[in-house]
Amino acid sequence: MGLPVVVLVEPSHPGNIGAVARAMKTMGHMQLRLVNPKKNLNDSEAIARASSAGDVLTSAKCYASLEDAVFDCDLVLALSNRPRTLNWPVYSPRHAAEKFLAVKQKIALVFGRESNGLSNDEVNICNAQITIATNSCYGSLNLSHAVQLTVYEFYNVFLQHSNQDSIDLNETVLHFEAMQLKEHFNKTLEKLPFFDMSSPGHTLSRLFCLINRAQPNKNELNLLHGILSAMDKVIDGAKNED
Amino acid sequence: MGLPVVVLVEPSHPGNIGAVARAMKTMGHMQLRLVNPKKNLNDSEAIARASSAGDVLTSAKCYASLEDAVFDCDLVLALSNRPRTLNWPVYSPRHAAEKFLAVKQKIALVFGRESNGLSNDEVNICNAQITIATNSCYGSLNLSHAVQLTVYEFYNVFLQHSNQDSIDLNETVLHFEAMQLKEHFNKTLEKLPFFDMSSPGHTLSRLFCLINRAQPNKNELNLLHGILSAMDKVIDGAKNED
Repeated sequence: MGLPVVVLVEPSHPGNIGAVARAMKTMGHMQLRLVNPKKNLNDSEAIARASSAGDVLTSAKCYASLEDAVFDCDLVLALSNRPRTLNWPVYSPRHAAEKFLAVKQKIALVFGRESNGLSNDEVNICNAQITIATNSCYGSLNLSHAVQLTVYEFYNVFLQHSNQDSIDLNETVLHFEAMQLKEHFNKTLEKLPFFDMSSPGHTLSRLFCLINRAQPNKNELNLLHGILSAMDKVIDGAKNED
Repeated sequence: MGLPVVVLVEPSHPGNIGAVARAMKTMGHMQLRLVNPKKNLNDSEAIARASSAGDVLTSAKCYASLEDAVFDCDLVLALSNRPRTLNWPVYSPRHAAEKFLAVKQKIALVFGRESNGLSNDEVNICNAQITIATNSCYGSLNLSHAVQLTVYEFYNVFLQHSNQDSIDLNETVLHFEAMQLKEHFNKTLEKLPFFDMSSPGHTLSRLFCLINRAQPNKNELNLLHGILSAMDKVIDGAKNED
């Protein structure tokens, strides 16, 4: 069982990146990934605020897109306080840590911009959302403080589990495998006659809310691909006969 | 039941004081007290880092000693990671919140200097100690991050006591509706060419493990029926052409 990687999407302030590195290290989290940071990581304020967590900062990796940054993760959790209209799976940091830490191989915790968080498209790349309960009058946590709370909860669960037996991870579904299933649904439903795909993005979002809540294993993923492949053959056959 | 007051003993950096004010307000804590702060609270960095928690900053009160700062409190908790030789009561932030919030009238959370925390004399003024579990290799939390974690735990317990989540029953899917969906899957998959339904009971069980974990709402149930109905039409059309 490993602690999550932390992904910051387009952070603006080097001081925040340094403070995130420090917050992470105090809770044993060492892997920091950045998607298009606005400033260089060698910034003096980032280094000063990192304090003795300079190693987290110097080993941080930069990526051109969120998809690239989470390529090897099997669960991607978006930190967002925005309420979702769909029945999207939303957890508190504690609940997410308790539910996922022991059963997933590599979790990414994705934090958005200081100014306006994550876009809907970015949240849709993720498998579920973490929302930190805050004061209804003022819930704007500083970025590094949101990271601190989240990694604290994962670290606490990590400590609880560290003496227990490890769980069999062979069944883990990687993030790109979940994306492949989404793409398969997209292709099949788009060509499915009699089915309303007038807004495919919305339909797929609804469907993947459901699938993300269920967290399918490999076996179940194969079953769904099997159903879709059989549908493909029927649809393609019916088309050829037109 | 009220949320604790936060007491900072001799804080050095105005930026930290501002960040503490912001961290407090996000978790509903509004009363900040300072013992001999090194800098004026009107410092521009304090104000900038407080963001929209300027009200916490401007209403903060300064005191000449820790005793004065906690004169009206009925429980004073010292934040410290230093191990104690005596059998001093030490709690995690969560445990302290769970144990004391509902039964004490006014709790003070006392945080020490950025450089070297609280002195032994200062800890001895307090009734008990809170220690945040941290990485054994590096446990030095920034002051405002330590405040953030602690007030977060108190706020969570506060919410548990004051909120009972209401459940929207309109969305609830009744058992017979779930059974109808299962039956629809059964009928569609049985007649789906190219799909192996040699053991339909087993296949449906696997599928419904997944669906039950997700606990679909009515909307999602309709979406799945919609996909199956469209498949039915394609399959039936293809059959008629045989």
